[in-house]
Amino acid sequence: MTAASEIHPKTVRGVTRIARNAKAAASQLATTSTAEKNTALTAVADALRANTDRIVAANEADIAAGIDDGMSEALLDRLRLDADRIAAIADSVDAVVDLADPVGDVVLGRTLPNGIRLTQTRVPMGVIGAIYEARPNVTVDIAVLALKSGNASVLRGGSAAQNSNAEIITVLRNAVASAGLPADAINGIDQFGRDGANVLMHARDFVDLLIPRGGTELINMVVQESIVPVIETGVGNVHMFIDSTATVKTAVDLVLNSKTQRPSVCNSLETLLVHEKAAKRVLPKILDRLDGEGVVVHADSDVAAHAPTTMKIKRVSRRDWAKEYLGLEIAVKLVSGIEEAIDHIRAYSSGHTEVIVTKDLDNADTFVAAIDAAAVGVNVSTRFTDGGELGFGAEVGISTQKLHARGPMGLEQLTTTKWVMMGNGQIRS
Amino acid sequence: MTAASEIHPKTVRGVTRIARNAKAAASQLATTSTAEKNTALTAVADALRANTDRIVAANEADIAAGIDDGMSEALLDRLRLDADRIAAIADSVDAVVDLADPVGDVVLGRTLPNGIRLTQTRVPMGVIGAIYEARPNVTVDIAVLALKSGNASVLRGGSAAQNSNAEIITVLRNAVASAGLPADAINGIDQFGRDGANVLMHARDFVDLLIPRGGTELINMVVQESIVPVIETGVGNVHMFIDSTATVKTAVDLVLNSKTQRPSVCNSLETLLVHEKAAKRVLPKILDRLDGEGVVVHADSDVAAHAPTTMKIKRVSRRDWAKEYLGLEIAVKLVSGIEEAIDHIRAYSSGHTEVIVTKDLDNADTFVAAIDAAAVGVNVSTRFTDGGELGFGAEVGISTQKLHARGPMGLEQLTTTKWVMMGNGQIRS
Repeated sequence: MTAASEIHPKTVRGVTRIARNAKAAASQLATTSTAEKNTALTAVADALRANTDRIVAANEADIAAGIDDGMSEALLDRLRLDADRIAAIADSVDAVVDLADPVGDVVLGRTLPNGIRLTQTRVPMGVIGAIYEARPNVTVDIAVLALKSGNASVLRGGSAAQNSNAEIITVLRNAVASAGLPADAINGIDQFGRDGANVLMHARDFVDLLIPRGGTELINMVVQESIVPVIETGVGNVHMFIDSTATVKTAVDLVLNSKTQRPSVCNSLETLLVHEKAAKRVLPKILDRLDGEGVVVHADSDVAAHAPTTMKIKRVSRRDWAKEYLGLEIAVKLVSGIEEAIDHIRAYSSGHTEVIVTKDLDNADTFVAAIDAAAVGVNVSTRFTDGGELGFGAEVGISTQKLHARGPMGLEQLTTTKWVMMGNGQIRS
Repeated sequence: MTAASEIHPKTVRGVTRIARNAKAAASQLATTSTAEKNTALTAVADALRANTDRIVAANEADIAAGIDDGMSEALLDRLRLDADRIAAIADSVDAVVDLADPVGDVVLGRTLPNGIRLTQTRVPMGVIGAIYEARPNVTVDIAVLALKSGNASVLRGGSAAQNSNAEIITVLRNAVASAGLPADAINGIDQFGRDGANVLMHARDFVDLLIPRGGTELINMVVQESIVPVIETGVGNVHMFIDSTATVKTAVDLVLNSKTQRPSVCNSLETLLVHEKAAKRVLPKILDRLDGEGVVVHADSDVAAHAPTTMKIKRVSRRDWAKEYLGLEIAVKLVSGIEEAIDHIRAYSSGHTEVIVTKDLDNADTFVAAIDAAAVGVNVSTRFTDGGELGFGAEVGISTQKLHARGPMGLEQLTTTKWVMMGNGQIRS
């Protein structure tokens, strides 16, 4: 990261001007009606469909550059846009039109003894910055959720998606302007490179909230560097503890679903803790099924003793306990009971999702009370920590911090509140 | 501010050890019942009364040092503790016992289509750090509100109050331990000086929230330096706009109360904007009354034309518009209408409290919608933005940022939530 003092003045001026314009647009959006915002969102969905060819062409340039740079197939897949994917993105924008607008909701209202009528009313945050990696769908996700909740956005995507993002942002800005809202409601700063991201992280006068979305390294960099308030999202070193009373079927189903239903995402299972008294009953079947799904298991010899003879187990190291594999790998450990399970989770949890599988009411209560995470589950797949699954509609990410938003961040989490005091001359005595 | 790399390893180890112990205490407090916490708080109040002499003696050492250092009478007054003040502090602790405990409140609950019972439950934040200036009552305020809401605290007061704070923290820790809770629920780090504050601002693994309380300089330093999430409190460049339809009596009453009822606090009025059509009616009386109360008025000649001939008006400069006087001074400006008033407030507001005085419904609505501040008032004194006045009981400060807490921060703002998912084997398809 370049020190702020070494950034070219042109970059500082350029990003600052964009952030200032975004703030002016945000003032206008704050008093824009839900109907007007929905009209603009519909225009955005239509424009994405109408400009599919242009967006695909821009994306092809990014893909070609990615191949030249030796980008992995998994990353190329995240980067790739085709007509089907753009259609799906446009449909997701239409779905946001149908979500309730949180702006204007009265969170609390009372009349004070002196007659002042007090209301706490939901209002937009203002300007939301986002710094993320090379997934161009995130550009649309964040811009659209910000707009629906009355916010302007300033977006810094990965440089590998630069052409795609530039084209998408042009399409979005034109669509928003065609619906009579300010084009500066949506802004890209990819053209300023990494230094532009640095300026954004220091634009505290104009940016109200910064959301980093990506891997641990990106998030840590933003947390360290930003003086704009940050909400951390998405790092999930997710645990499941199989208690001695768990039934084999439930344990097997939940482990398999949590690990393999979509291994690349933050709410997938990374470390399995098994009560030593349950090991003989549940582990042979769990290990066999994981093996069948191609999952690499990291464990010690006590665990390996329960594996099918043909199965290869990788020797577990301390580093595995802290690792978010985000793929078909899992660390497995025997524990002497719920206390050891809780201690292990406290030591290694990223505060995302932690689950116990048990039939014992006391242990369920103990686990829920003792574990400090955004979501704690009893006898459920870890994969349910998700805005859609929990009933919020679309989400900007899963917050793993405690301030402001914890867990899935939907539209409501992109707002703040304003206290309104209506009186007729009250003074304080 | 010392660069983190230059801090003595002993300071880093010492503060980190305290923060780690505080986190362990927080784990225990998270499952401590309200009754147990209240017993500990009552013990704290009793211990403050029983140890009045020791605390006063420690405070006398701070006062003596302050006099030697040439501290102003206003600062000495903030620093001073006597038997009456300690009795008042102990009474305020008893009042916290009577407040409702937010921990365990269910914020939202629903049953998902798949049968998972979902609840969003209020839980403590964990460890709350505070960095503040030389007012030893703040030590008790923050420690006690943190404890009531199930949090441990790590406190860094001003070095000028070092002896008072050390004695108070000893009394508090002993009282908490005597009630069976961990002494590490309350911790001081004054002994490590400024470098200790720096380590605290980087102790992200152990500290969940940092609250700076003090002047603009202190708050800006913490915002710039801290990688622990911060809530900004208390800077109030507060405006009042007198619209053309305001009655003289209401305008005079509200200006006088807002400026002079307690000028040293953040919700007192700093800049008065007057509609030019109201100037002739309201200004002579307002200026005369301000003069009578000894308030220094900063204004231009258009305003001065309405002043009593004997009154001295100070020539206003651009800097006055941005200034939080926190004393018997005020800036006054004529504006051509509500648009200019809103533009001026947008340019100079610190986002604390802004008030309009009007009889016009459209202008009241416009002002409330357009002004981006924690509190917006219509025909009320600015002094009502206060936890006690708005009905929250005690407060830790007034948040002027948009994330997590905006406006008075009471017990609820010292908590976060946890999503609890109760199921019987649900998997995601």
